[in-house]
Amino acid sequence: MISSFANAKVKYVRRLQAEKRFRLKENVFVVEGTRWISELIQLSRIPNIVFYTDEWLNAADNETILQQLAGIKQAVTEQIMQAMSDTQTPPGILAVLPVQALPWPEKPSFLLILDQIMNPGNLGTMLRTAGAAGVEGVILGPGCVNAYNPKAVRGSMGAHLRLPILAATWPEIKKLVQDMSVWLAAADGDLAYTAVPWTQPSALIIGGEADGAGSQARKLATSPIAIPMHAATESLNAAVAAAVILFEAARQRRETSGK
Amino acid sequence: MISSFANAKVKYVRRLQAEKRFRLKENVFVVEGTRWISELIQLSRIPNIVFYTDEWLNAADNETILQQLAGIKQAVTEQIMQAMSDTQTPPGILAVLPVQALPWPEKPSFLLILDQIMNPGNLGTMLRTAGAAGVEGVILGPGCVNAYNPKAVRGSMGAHLRLPILAATWPEIKKLVQDMSVWLAAADGDLAYTAVPWTQPSALIIGGEADGAGSQARKLATSPIAIPMHAATESLNAAVAAAVILFEAARQRRETSGK
Repeated sequence: MISSFANAKVKYVRRLQAEKRFRLKENVFVVEGTRWISELIQLSRIPNIVFYTDEWLNAADNETILQQLAGIKQAVTEQIMQAMSDTQTPPGILAVLPVQALPWPEKPSFLLILDQIMNPGNLGTMLRTAGAAGVEGVILGPGCVNAYNPKAVRGSMGAHLRLPILAATWPEIKKLVQDMSVWLAAADGDLAYTAVPWTQPSALIIGGEADGAGSQARKLATSPIAIPMHAATESLNAAVAAAVILFEAARQRRETSGK
Repeated sequence: MISSFANAKVKYVRRLQAEKRFRLKENVFVVEGTRWISELIQLSRIPNIVFYTDEWLNAADNETILQQLAGIKQAVTEQIMQAMSDTQTPPGILAVLPVQALPWPEKPSFLLILDQIMNPGNLGTMLRTAGAAGVEGVILGPGCVNAYNPKAVRGSMGAHLRLPILAATWPEIKKLVQDMSVWLAAADGDLAYTAVPWTQPSALIIGGEADGAGSQARKLATSPIAIPMHAATESLNAAVAAAVILFEAARQRRETSGK
């Protein structure tokens, strides 16, 4: 069992958690929690290394999970896990995983474009929501936080493994959506999000909560769309607005497909 | 300008931020940010005291806001604001406000019931979302975090001022919803949330993300309802699930009312 902070693997993980540049150079990311580990096993994505605590191992069913990670698993003390974890109360299992880009859909019919989403927790929530709503790919425009930020990874609950994610410039984004309608969520939109024909090939742009979407996003959009609110002073958190619109799209697409 | 940590008002605010029991005893709560202060002025809710920094005052339009708080405003240094604030980067304006319960609707047609929502940020987001979706009252069941927790207040963006919020036991909740259908968001629900007749008097129960809703909530519910997901392994954050369902209800209610 690793109990030393001087252990090379421990130092490596701590550096990955702290330094974005090092993470990018190594082309790996860190995941935590039983949910993430189970997803990895289900999708046969083998981590480089898995760290666990005895306390985690003694919880129900976790021994079964660990058996499938023979050869790469490594026990650590609670103190070491605490030092490696990005959370205040570590779940007790942590893995380092190669970044592996999923193939971009050839003829996408449902994309999400994020503009200047700087809060990693918000990004993680939006990735999770996009996956659940059936979005086929997420484009991170300029000014977004990195998709492999530890807090974004934590919030996504494994969406990184199933959802193609692409960082792109505005000229690149323009090409990626050339055969699609592009809808921009904006408080001043005069079209209700429920009036959009989401069964057509559609991309939704969500801007950062502080300043909304930028001028490039506005230029690209077919139309701004709004979520009607109970009163004019009301507003929604960016991740909540994304969820409301994406699941309206999912509803329309489900009803049309007769499922 | 207050610059001393020993100042009685500064000590009072710091204690309010730190001690739930003291907050309850004083029957006040602390709000931060220009958005909250503007809401207070708009609704003629006069705070007990307002603290601001020069940096905040020098930002656009803030002098106009402050003029309406003559007699209760108090300048403080950046250091004092940092010490009083619940945030890492304080917005620069902070107020202490009496708790003032809004009248509960007599014949409600749209309620939200929260069961064991322990994350204050999630609670704040749900209050904000509920207000925007036209929910008429929010009931906090046993095991929920206090509505006036600083993080819940921050996330609600002023919803506390417009939305009746009530903490209640399950027998009390049963009485409050006796003429309504009660729908429980649950991963195993066999009714899609889009198939619910939300134009009828309806209450939605949302449970904590970790363990879902408790047995009392299940007993009270007319039926569990689910959000169809793209794949079986997907799931949603509790605040996101609440938003998706509440805005489907809002959509149905808006379309029926012909607005």
